[in-house]
Formats: sequence, structure tokens, C-alpha cells
Amino acid sequence: MLSDMSPRSRRQLLSMIGKAGGGLAMYQAMTVFGHAAETRFTGPPQLTGARKGSTVLVLGAGLAGMLAAHELTKAGYKVQVLEFQDRPGGRNYSVRGGDKIVEVGGAVQNVGYAPGNYLNPGPWRIPHHHRTLLHYTKAFGVELEPFIQLNHNTLVHRKDAFGGKPQRYRELSVDFKGHVAELLGKSLNAGALDSSVTREDKEKLIDAMRQWGVLDGDMKFTGDLRVSAQRGYDKAPGGGVGGAPTPSKINSLSDVLSSQVWSQIGFFFSYVMQTTMFQPKGGMDMIGKGFYRQVGKMVRLNTKVTRIAQDDKGVTANWTDTVTGQSGESKADWMVCTIPATILSQIDIQVSDTKKAALKALPYSNSVKIGLEMKRRFWEEDYSIYGGHSFTDQAIGLVSYPNNNFFQDGPAVLLGAFAGRAGGYQFAGMTPEQRIQTALDMGSVFHPAEYRKEFRTGASVAWSRMPWILGCCASWTEQSREDHYDNLVAMDGRIVLAGEHASYYGCWMEGALLSSLDAIKRLHQRALAA
Amino acid sequence: MLSDMSPRSRRQLLSMIGKAGGGLAMYQAMTVFGHAAETRFTGPPQLTGARKGSTVLVLGAGLAGMLAAHELTKAGYKVQVLEFQDRPGGRNYSVRGGDKIVEVGGAVQNVGYAPGNYLNPGPWRIPHHHRTLLHYTKAFGVELEPFIQLNHNTLVHRKDAFGGKPQRYRELSVDFKGHVAELLGKSLNAGALDSSVTREDKEKLIDAMRQWGVLDGDMKFTGDLRVSAQRGYDKAPGGGVGGAPTPSKINSLSDVLSSQVWSQIGFFFSYVMQTTMFQPKGGMDMIGKGFYRQVGKMVRLNTKVTRIAQDDKGVTANWTDTVTGQSGESKADWMVCTIPATILSQIDIQVSDTKKAALKALPYSNSVKIGLEMKRRFWEEDYSIYGGHSFTDQAIGLVSYPNNNFFQDGPAVLLGAFAGRAGGYQFAGMTPEQRIQTALDMGSVFHPAEYRKEFRTGASVAWSRMPWILGCCASWTEQSREDHYDNLVAMDGRIVLAGEHASYYGCWMEGALLSSLDAIKRLHQRALAA
Repeated sequence: MLSDMSPRSRRQLLSMIGKAGGGLAMYQAMTVFGHAAETRFTGPPQLTGARKGSTVLVLGAGLAGMLAAHELTKAGYKVQVLEFQDRPGGRNYSVRGGDKIVEVGGAVQNVGYAPGNYLNPGPWRIPHHHRTLLHYTKAFGVELEPFIQLNHNTLVHRKDAFGGKPQRYRELSVDFKGHVAELLGKSLNAGALDSSVTREDKEKLIDAMRQWGVLDGDMKFTGDLRVSAQRGYDKAPGGGVGGAPTPSKINSLSDVLSSQVWSQIGFFFSYVMQTTMFQPKGGMDMIGKGFYRQVGKMVRLNTKVTRIAQDDKGVTANWTDTVTGQSGESKADWMVCTIPATILSQIDIQVSDTKKAALKALPYSNSVKIGLEMKRRFWEEDYSIYGGHSFTDQAIGLVSYPNNNFFQDGPAVLLGAFAGRAGGYQFAGMTPEQRIQTALDMGSVFHPAEYRKEFRTGASVAWSRMPWILGCCASWTEQSREDHYDNLVAMDGRIVLAGEHASYYGCWMEGALLSSLDAIKRLHQRALAA
Repeated sequence: MLSDMSPRSRRQLLSMIGKAGGGLAMYQAMTVFGHAAETRFTGPPQLTGARKGSTVLVLGAGLAGMLAAHELTKAGYKVQVLEFQDRPGGRNYSVRGGDKIVEVGGAVQNVGYAPGNYLNPGPWRIPHHHRTLLHYTKAFGVELEPFIQLNHNTLVHRKDAFGGKPQRYRELSVDFKGHVAELLGKSLNAGALDSSVTREDKEKLIDAMRQWGVLDGDMKFTGDLRVSAQRGYDKAPGGGVGGAPTPSKINSLSDVLSSQVWSQIGFFFSYVMQTTMFQPKGGMDMIGKGFYRQVGKMVRLNTKVTRIAQDDKGVTANWTDTVTGQSGESKADWMVCTIPATILSQIDIQVSDTKKAALKALPYSNSVKIGLEMKRRFWEEDYSIYGGHSFTDQAIGLVSYPNNNFFQDGPAVLLGAFAGRAGGYQFAGMTPEQRIQTALDMGSVFHPAEYRKEFRTGASVAWSRMPWILGCCASWTEQSREDHYDNLVAMDGRIVLAGEHASYYGCWMEGALLSSLDAIKRLHQRALAA
């Protein structure tokens, strides 16, 4: 194993690989050392030598479908893509002024955002380790900018904590670690853990608690100036005469516990949520548009697939043009089907019973996002909040602040709700106007003086009411994964499924892309062997 | 007190203030509620009614001096600014290709960075609560972009930990909290803290430790998949067949303790280091240039002040033009002197003995920054590191990754050293070439295969060798503050000092600006009373 080599030998080998293969080879070699075991992506697939004249039908022009079309075309296949909607991208989607959102149930929203403003109702942030996506955004010329995920200055609200008054995350998180450090320090000093830690580790741990918790000489967490240098001051440091700061008062252990701030701390520690994160400049749909620039010529929009069949010779999809009403069928040798399970399970499709069972068993999450356009960036101007999220235990879940155009005058769109689970169903059951009003009520807890005063217009996307998907994204349970995942992803005759639902990265664009790459590699192998 | 009002009354009052006064009045009112006690800045000073024909001489065209010139001119004074260097901005400075750096001792560097690349040798990041600076950057049209401060994916190196092999910050920080949670949970369950916490808090704390530490059912911190969902996987989740992830192995308590990762955690918790942070697009000197656009006409560059005198009628500065050799003197009614104490303490100046003693007693920090231009962004391409800092206990202190132009091809400048204290003196004692070689040696620990291979050119700024300052910034001790601060900032006849050294925000641009605003307010008051 490479990992058994001496550091010097490793370095030499790495250097040789670097000279020979450049960045990507190096990257893969690094992976062996555990420096970068963060992705399955090893560069775009090198598929070549498709049989002359071989054809593939791709269903769905979301990211998985468009990536399949792009790479299979490069491999030599002739590809056609059928897409239900009047635009490419699928859930890679940005809602803008002038857009019309039509829901199952009949509700229609005409979006009134100012030019340049948008809501990303689906994916909205990109982890630094989603290297498949980062590879193709770069390859397709999609510019990215930082997404501010962790902002210490945002607010945390729980109905039952601090009399319902939101607290700054920085204050709660500093106080939490201070109290934890004081208590663990006390246990260590009292010898309560002498059977669990060595004498040497105990000394180091006490020192660690003192520094990490910012404890005083008696190992107490108190509100001294050193603590304020983390949680903020009552009177900030100034210049000139009277510049000395005064410390802020820490919260009691009981108060900090009532805030349950560890949920937020844990959220920031989640690998997919860790900094550095990105978003496309100008809206998430820039990614879908980047993919579409590669494959647009192969895509037939407004095409509703009604039946999927296969036999020894090939595959057939029957469809209806949703604009003209015209019916038709498309044939090919092979098929990559990226239609979400929520929809595909309702279509007449010729696959094995186990795959049909998998499609029916796969649970989808529901969620609702609401974008509130405000007349000005009061969260920046009045609260010094630049990006990031304020959290609440109300149904909206959070308020998230825009990460583009910091400091600009004029209207900007806040994410006024990212409601999931019960909250998602609650919001989905409302009219669009009720959703806005409820989001304004709930979000006012953070910005009581400004929230309604500065509100301009809003729009919401309730995923369970989007006719083309009827849900947000795959939400495998351990049991459904165990029972059905292998059956879902297995190639079935001439048909293979792809999309975030066919991955262990459900709900992420990266999952859709990794699934697509895996699916087309298997399809290509099968096609060459056929 | 407003803070004694009911929430409802407060909200009504806030709403009234909001309607009446707009953003800034609201901001100040929020401060009363403790929502935003983060700054002394209450908007630009409203100085008016200077006596007709009153004049002010400002020494130094750094940020403090230029702000004083700008606001005093608005108040009606006639202002002249004398600046030693051939450029405005002072420590607000960016080193670029084509620049020449001349040191005390004679060393000369001709900087070879590619066009557009730069090193910010002085200030390089702006906290979200430095509202004086943020006000003027906006007012003067300086565009800002996020500075990635906290990046979970950067590396931590200590010579004595992990056999000298750097570890990802995310792994160390997750393992640290996991072990702390397990130990505190154990103490709580054993009743060791029953006299310190209530029964109710104890239950909540145990639950907190379980969730925060990601402990298992037995309250143990183990390397299961839930833990890997924070610290990263051995095999990342994938798409399609075989997509299941495998967990990574946690580090032992002893190993985590050897890394002293709490120093880094504490760094990120420091109020001035908390996200969201910013930097100017295009280099830090964009701020100095923005200020200069306002006051450039009043500034005399290349002007070395040799003597400062005052009497009942006014102030006089004698100077030499460093280009022509010409001598001259400038006179005015009042003076704002922003020359750093390191230099001012060596100039013949007519102020009280206590102020002279303060100038001599004020310690300055030393530090050295080294910018290494690399041929490509291997930290992004090969390590998925986008901005942020990798830390080491070697003299370089850290390697910091650029926050601009993510994903771009072509050369980019790494901060290869930010050496302070002993390390600062060590690097300042080297030739520029030795500094580069040492920085390359030390930084290679993070990127052994790439660091020397991709190196293109470098430049360093050793602050103690910069002839115009001979140090980095004021580093008050508690004792020197106690003995001398009030004397330093007190107006002395017709002379007032300003700059970061005359503030409780030493080493920050915000301190220079707050100090300047305080100084000119007092000067104006004195001038009206005279």
C-alpha cells in the first residue's frame, strides 16, 4: 500500500506522478493518501468506441439527463433528449420577475421581482467537495461566487428560549463552549475522569478547556473582556478618548441550553454544509443553462412522456407535445431515464417488477421555499448580517440572506422560508398569498421593525405542487435503501435510471451527476457487449 | 431605560423611529436594545461652522489622515496633507508586479507578479462589524467581496503531532468536540456534576452532548457513518451501483490533544475574525485609492516632515521634498498628526513631555508577510481548498489561500507567511531571497508535491524594515495602556494625534478611522472655543 511508504518515498512518488500526469492524476494519487478521499469523481469518463449508429434516448433534461447526453455524444452515440417542461434544468431552477408558477391545484403566481433578482427554489449552494459539479461548471463556463454559509452574526430563535427573543449565534455558541469547558474542567480537576484519561492527557485537556472555553484563572466561565473578544462587547472598542470597551454579560447555562444552539453548531459541522461553499453568479439556473449550451440541439422541450417500452431491439417512448397536442414516439437502442420516481411510478413503463416496486417505495421529501423581496437590505444596513441564515423553530425553519451584491442599494430577495417535514406540508396547504403572509409573520421575529415595512413582493415554490415532480427529492430511509436501492439502479434490459434518487447523495446536484456518470458507464459497457 | 420597556412597546417605538429616521437612526436605536452594540460609529460626523479661513495641517496620508482631511474640509476648514511616501494609503497597501520594495538595510525587491495579482502586506480582511470602514468604502465606491476566513477543509500542522503530517481542520475539530462530549457525558452520567447543575439542565446537557458530539447510543464517540457525515468519509457517497459510503476512522483523544486544534477553533471564534469578512476587489489599496479620490488635491506626496512646532497662533511643520531635495515649511491653525509613533518619536516635536513619553513607550508589533506566486491553483484543483488558512507552528504561522478569482487558470498569489513575534524577527533578519526559500521549505509541509514545483516568484514585506514605519502596528500592553494611552490621545495645544495607535482597535483600519473621527471632533470643538 502507498500509505505504508515513508513520507520521503511518498513525496518522491507524488512528485513523479505530478510531473507525468498533471493536476488530475495528482488529485487521484492524493486520494490514495487520504488527503482527498472526498469524492468518487475521477475526471470525466473516457467513453469511446460506441458502435456506429448506436442511439440513446434520454428522458429528462435536468442535470443528470443533460450530462448523459453530453458524455454519450462524445462517446459516439446519437442522442435525443425529451423534456416535459418548457425549459431545461429541472430542479436546477431560478424564479425571476416575469416568471409564472402554476401549481397542481390551479394556483398561479406571476412573479414580480425586480430585474436581476431571483429565488433559487431547489439547489442553492455547492459544497467545495462536490467535484463533479465543480468540474462541469468550470468546463461549461459557469461562474461561481462564495455562498456565505456560516455567519456568526446571524440570529437563533426558539419560541421557548429567552422569552422568544432571538440571540446572536456568536453569543450562544461562545457561551455554550464556555459552560461546557467549565464543567468538563471541573470534572477533570475533581478526578472524576481519572480512570478514562491518562495523567498526561488530563493535563492537556484542562489546558485545552481553559483556552477553548476562555475560562478565567479559577477555570470559571465569566463575562470578562477576553470572553467579550469572542461574543462581542456591551460597548465596543473605540478610538481616541474613552476608547476602552466594556464587556458583555454571558448567558447562564440554563438559558443557553434552552436555545438548543448545538443543532445549529451541528448543522455547520455537517460535511455537505461546511465552508467553503459556492453559488453560481446570477442564479442557480446558470448551471442548467451551461449544460444546455452543450446539448440544447438534442433536446425536445414540452414533451410529455406517456409510455416507455423496450424489447430485444430497442426502446420506445410515446409522448405528447404539451403545446401543440401532437403525439409521437421516439425510438433508440438504449435509454437513460432521469424522470423522478414520483412521476415515473405513474407512467406505463416496461421494466421488472422489482424496479417498479422500487419506484413506488421511494419516499420523496417535501419542502417549500419562499422568496421575499425587500425594498432595501436592512439586514446588512441595520444588523450587520451579510449572508448566512437566521434559524427558528417556527415552520419557516430559517431566514436566509442573499449572498450576491452585498452592500447594494435597491430591492433584494431574502429566503423567507425553507420549510420541510410538517412545516413543508403546512405551507404547501396554503394559497401562495397565505404563504407570504405567514412567512412575513414568522420572519418578523428576527427583524420586527423592518420585515413588513420593507416588504415588496414574494413568490413561493411548494415542491409537492409542482406538476413535473410532485415532491422535492429522494429521501431514502435505511429500510427502503436496503430493500430497493440495488433494484432501482440496476440496468434493466436496455433501460438505466439516473438522477439524484439513484445515488447516495440524494437531494444534491452532485448525486444526480455521479449517478448519471455511473449509469452511462454501465450502459456503454452493456452496449459494447451486446 | 428602553431596555425596561415591554417587547410590544419597544417594537412600536422602533417602528416609529424607523419611519422617522430611516436606516441609520434605526441602527442606533437597535444599539440601545443590545442588538447591535458592535460599533462606536454613529454615522459620519456632522461638523459644521468652522471659523472662516481656519486651516488644518494633516501629517500622513494613510486612512486616518485622509479621513480627517475629508471630514474637516466638509466642516469648512482649509486642509493640507503632507505624506512621506510617493503614494497615499500608508499601510493600506498592495504589492503588485512592477513594484519596487526598498528596505532599511538596503535590500531591494523588484516584484514580478503577473498582471492583476497582488499581496496585501498590511490589512487584508474586514470584519462585518467594522462599520466605519464599511460606511466609507461604500461612500467612496470601493467594491468588496467575501474574504473566506473559516474553511473547514484547510490543514493544521504541528511539528509534534501526527508525526508532522498535516490534518484537515474539519477532522480535528469534529474529533475534538466528539471526545469532549463523550467525557462530559460520562461525568454527567456518573453524577460527578450533580452539585453543579440542576437535574433538568443535566438531562438537557446529556442530550446536548449526544447531539453536538454525535455520540452513539452508549454515549461513545465512534467512527460511525453519522460521524463521517461531519468529518468526511473514507469512501465518499457515490451514484448508482456501489454508491454506499464507508466511514472514516476517528483520531484518538491523545492525537487530537497533540494537535492543539483549540487554538484554531479559538481563532475562528475571535470577534474580529468571525464570518462574514470582506476584502476589496482588486487589492486592499483600492480603499486608499478611494479615499485619495476625495482628498488627493490636498495631498503633497514625497514630503518628509523633519520638525513640528506650535505656539499660541498655530502650528508649523518643516519638511524636505524627498525627490527634489527642496526644503519648506507648512503652517496652519491646527494639526492632525497621524505619523506612527515609531517615526514620530524620532522627530523634533513640540508637545508635552507626557506625550513624548507615550510616543516612546508605545510598543509596535513586527510581522512579515510573504506572497508566493504559484503557476496554478493546486490548492483548489488538488486539495479542494478555496480560500482560508492552513496553520502551522513553524515560523511562517500559516499559508493563506487567495479569495479572489476562484477556479481561474493561471498564476495566483498565496500568502506564504504571516510571521509574527519571534518568527517575524527571524524572517526580518533574512535577505528577501532567504525569506522566500524558507517560506517554500516550511509551506511544503502542506503541499509537498506542488509547492516548489509550481513556484513562480515571490515578494516579502518585513514591516520593521519599511523605512516609513519601522514596525507593523501598535501593540499596547495593559501596563503601557494604563500609563500612556490617555496622554497619547489628549489634545496638546493645537496638535492632536490620530491613527490605529491612538485607539483600542490597534492594528485595524477601523481603529485608525475611529481614532481620526474622535480626534477631529475634539479639534473642531477646541477650534470653535478658541
